[in-house]
Amino acid sequence: MSYGGEYDRGDSRRKGRQTRTQRRAARREGTTKLPGVPYIIRNIPTYDILSEENLQKIERTAERILAEIGIEFRDDPVSVDHWKRAGARVEGVRVRFEPGMLQEIVASAPSEFTQHARNPANNVQIGGKKVVFSPAYGSPFVMDLDKGRRYGTIEDFQNFIKLAQASPWLHHSGGTICEPVDVPVNKRHLDMVYSHIKYSDRAFMGSVTAEERAEDSIEMTRILFGADFVDRNCVILGNVNVNSPLVWDGTMTKSLRAYARANQAAVIVPFILGGAMGPVTNAGAIAQSYAETLAGCALTQLERKGAPVIFGNFLSSMSLRSGSPTFGTPEPAIGSMVIGQLARRLKLPLRCAGNFSNSKLPDGQAMQEGLMSMLSAIHCGANFILHSAGFLDGLLVMSYEKFVMDADLCGALHSYLAGVTVDDNTLAFDAFEEVGPGSHFLGSAHTMRNYQTAFWDSTLSDNEPFEKWSEEGGSTDIATRANRQWKTTLANYEAPPLDNAADEALCDFMARRKASMADGWY
Amino acid sequence: MSYGGEYDRGDSRRKGRQTRTQRRAARREGTTKLPGVPYIIRNIPTYDILSEENLQKIERTAERILAEIGIEFRDDPVSVDHWKRAGARVEGVRVRFEPGMLQEIVASAPSEFTQHARNPANNVQIGGKKVVFSPAYGSPFVMDLDKGRRYGTIEDFQNFIKLAQASPWLHHSGGTICEPVDVPVNKRHLDMVYSHIKYSDRAFMGSVTAEERAEDSIEMTRILFGADFVDRNCVILGNVNVNSPLVWDGTMTKSLRAYARANQAAVIVPFILGGAMGPVTNAGAIAQSYAETLAGCALTQLERKGAPVIFGNFLSSMSLRSGSPTFGTPEPAIGSMVIGQLARRLKLPLRCAGNFSNSKLPDGQAMQEGLMSMLSAIHCGANFILHSAGFLDGLLVMSYEKFVMDADLCGALHSYLAGVTVDDNTLAFDAFEEVGPGSHFLGSAHTMRNYQTAFWDSTLSDNEPFEKWSEEGGSTDIATRANRQWKTTLANYEAPPLDNAADEALCDFMARRKASMADGWY
Repeated sequence: MSYGGEYDRGDSRRKGRQTRTQRRAARREGTTKLPGVPYIIRNIPTYDILSEENLQKIERTAERILAEIGIEFRDDPVSVDHWKRAGARVEGVRVRFEPGMLQEIVASAPSEFTQHARNPANNVQIGGKKVVFSPAYGSPFVMDLDKGRRYGTIEDFQNFIKLAQASPWLHHSGGTICEPVDVPVNKRHLDMVYSHIKYSDRAFMGSVTAEERAEDSIEMTRILFGADFVDRNCVILGNVNVNSPLVWDGTMTKSLRAYARANQAAVIVPFILGGAMGPVTNAGAIAQSYAETLAGCALTQLERKGAPVIFGNFLSSMSLRSGSPTFGTPEPAIGSMVIGQLARRLKLPLRCAGNFSNSKLPDGQAMQEGLMSMLSAIHCGANFILHSAGFLDGLLVMSYEKFVMDADLCGALHSYLAGVTVDDNTLAFDAFEEVGPGSHFLGSAHTMRNYQTAFWDSTLSDNEPFEKWSEEGGSTDIATRANRQWKTTLANYEAPPLDNAADEALCDFMARRKASMADGWY
Repeated sequence: MSYGGEYDRGDSRRKGRQTRTQRRAARREGTTKLPGVPYIIRNIPTYDILSEENLQKIERTAERILAEIGIEFRDDPVSVDHWKRAGARVEGVRVRFEPGMLQEIVASAPSEFTQHARNPANNVQIGGKKVVFSPAYGSPFVMDLDKGRRYGTIEDFQNFIKLAQASPWLHHSGGTICEPVDVPVNKRHLDMVYSHIKYSDRAFMGSVTAEERAEDSIEMTRILFGADFVDRNCVILGNVNVNSPLVWDGTMTKSLRAYARANQAAVIVPFILGGAMGPVTNAGAIAQSYAETLAGCALTQLERKGAPVIFGNFLSSMSLRSGSPTFGTPEPAIGSMVIGQLARRLKLPLRCAGNFSNSKLPDGQAMQEGLMSMLSAIHCGANFILHSAGFLDGLLVMSYEKFVMDADLCGALHSYLAGVTVDDNTLAFDAFEEVGPGSHFLGSAHTMRNYQTAFWDSTLSDNEPFEKWSEEGGSTDIATRANRQWKTTLANYEAPPLDNAADEALCDFMARRKASMADGWY
């Protein structure tokens, strides 16, 4: 069964050109089923903070790490064989690379690719000037203001998919939005992938926690899109982590290879907590991260030349007082900008930073740290921004309130990335002629012509006069308003239609796979 | 009486070079009297988002506004005479300027200058790569979590001076931190200037609400620093607003001229709420702002050639739903970056953006909007960042909690502006040699050598594990912790020593001036 033939493979930039007016009109209609843009085409440059000389120093240090110290590829002889054949120096599981070798290998990866969604209007373009916002990934806990923190369940997982699907400001359904701990570990991936397909018609991510789970995830996309289509097009992403410092373990390289083999995109991500998995100094952590990601990206090309891959990165810092990891701090934000500069020299799509905070509540700390971190992703030129919405408590909690607050922020970032348009209309000389000194622009022809598309207007921020806010608005903070919003959104949610035959085939596959698996919790 | 002779007129860049270690050590000592750096020297480039071609289009539109529409200078014949003598086309109060004329006039203003503080260690350098954080300015209301919103008093005013003085992350005492409404309007400026001198030893701002109040403010600095010193050095700033669109009223130009005449720095600021005082489109608002500020800057040079002046700007947006002004939104943030590019072409110090939010509470909205706005000031290259700390409810409320939260954020921005240092130590190759693959950096020689200065560590953010936060920490949000912090800081505050003779002379002056003024409320 194939749905591939129905897919619009045309220019998705065109679809990205929905006007602000259309978006705004859509937003006014309600809180669900709002047609946003499928992804953003940035109209502001990246923020390049480091000089050519310093970039080269970092690259040279990365080359020295790769050539003199090397990286270990543990528990995956196939990967080690790939390296041998590619001409790397292999001693046991330790692999060393001559300068320039990995850059040459990754040159076969596309600088930009389309990830297809089951609704082709939601196909995302990853790379170049495109920006895709995707929910946070991987928390064991969820929380909301009513029930507090608790372990995530499949119901929570599906709720977050529904909230993401309902937001016009997210572009992607994400992957392990939270861990559904009420489903056995060895079967969980099937329910997660199915939930993404069932409750969202956007692009999504599959499992990476074991090679067979990666294979299952991909197999489900073959049922949905057709095997042929999947072999020719990216329809699923797998987010694989380096075991920093300088170790790739077999679970991850096997999943990485499973995605590459199927022509699907692995996202290669070292998570470097400075002082623990890498040096406490930014330049060294960046060099390490560059080396580790580069090796992972190259491995995808050895598995299948030309497979899409995303150059990923995740820098973090540490509290001197408590030894705890810290998030949304300035050093990783600044480091991300440098990662962006380096990734662009490799011509690979970038995943970098996201919306992180250590706060346990959707409070001022959460939004300040979250925005510092999120803006670094925007400025560094990240193309795929995982963790755009929902995280609290580092990476541990997915918050319902924070999720809708972050999604609203993603809306503001659409306007931010639109930059400043300079043309006769926006320069508004006619408005100055009309209004003149000492008057106002409120009813001017220029204002009437432009006001509907002029400014971002949050659906969560309070912009009322104090009296109205306190008397009619109940003196709420934004977290309270977010609490109301996610409930309304879930109440109004309608699932996007899914072909019955595809649905049944997916359920059959899941049932067969589960029957073949051991009972219990793994 | 003169204290000018005691002033260190040496290189204040040197003083800016306190190391991170010193700062961090200082921070650990407590919450008051922490020696921070007197100002920041930025180590990251500005974020230039617009092309040369588009910058020129904006400049040309500004030139057309100035030449064809012009600006009105109302109720100040001296200003109009200045323009006549300078060769502008004057019809009544309407003044039109030939292209290039104003740029030529402002060329005599310094691109960078020192504002002296009564403690020379706190002198600030304004211009170039220097960044100075100053408290918010001008709210009629104050609020804290215990007592809610109320009109500001002189006690509140002094409390905020004390909180600013105690923060190592602010550099300037500011001006009208809040309106002390318990002091008559016509006498208020004397108490405000005296409070800055008495409770802070940092640089500060004077009154602009009437020419004689500007003169009084400056006269008080002559008592403190000596008349000769003041004539040769900048010791006080005056923040003057354009009456946008395209009107300068006499109260403001007279104050502007009073500051310039005394060789003190006026800050020239159009406040353009898009759709009301200017076009709803960013490019037009920027052109207008550029034209209005340029005219104000030029006027200072006609009053006294070579007087210091700061090119200011304040863009804002509007809610389509309520018609209320909105703050911390993406369009003004992006517009500020363009203002920065234009100001640098004029080689004038820049004041732009600040920390703004419409929220009525120190919540997630407040910190998200505040940071978006504040980072735009950082990125656009603002040298003097007024409104760095305290605002809520647009410009209407000075919040005790928000003030210390913002001051803490200013600390993080010190690390942000430090950028990425690239040298052998930070590249850390020796650390990779020592640690190797699969181990950790926690106790490595490189970590031990660097960890104390590696990462920003907030005194307000919670970075504890969830259990510790909920059991020992009382499950607080950041606003609750901020509420505790400002009380502790005020309880521990010690006034910087002030020479008795100077203090008495200042009090004498105030008493004489007040006696000469009408009773009652103006």
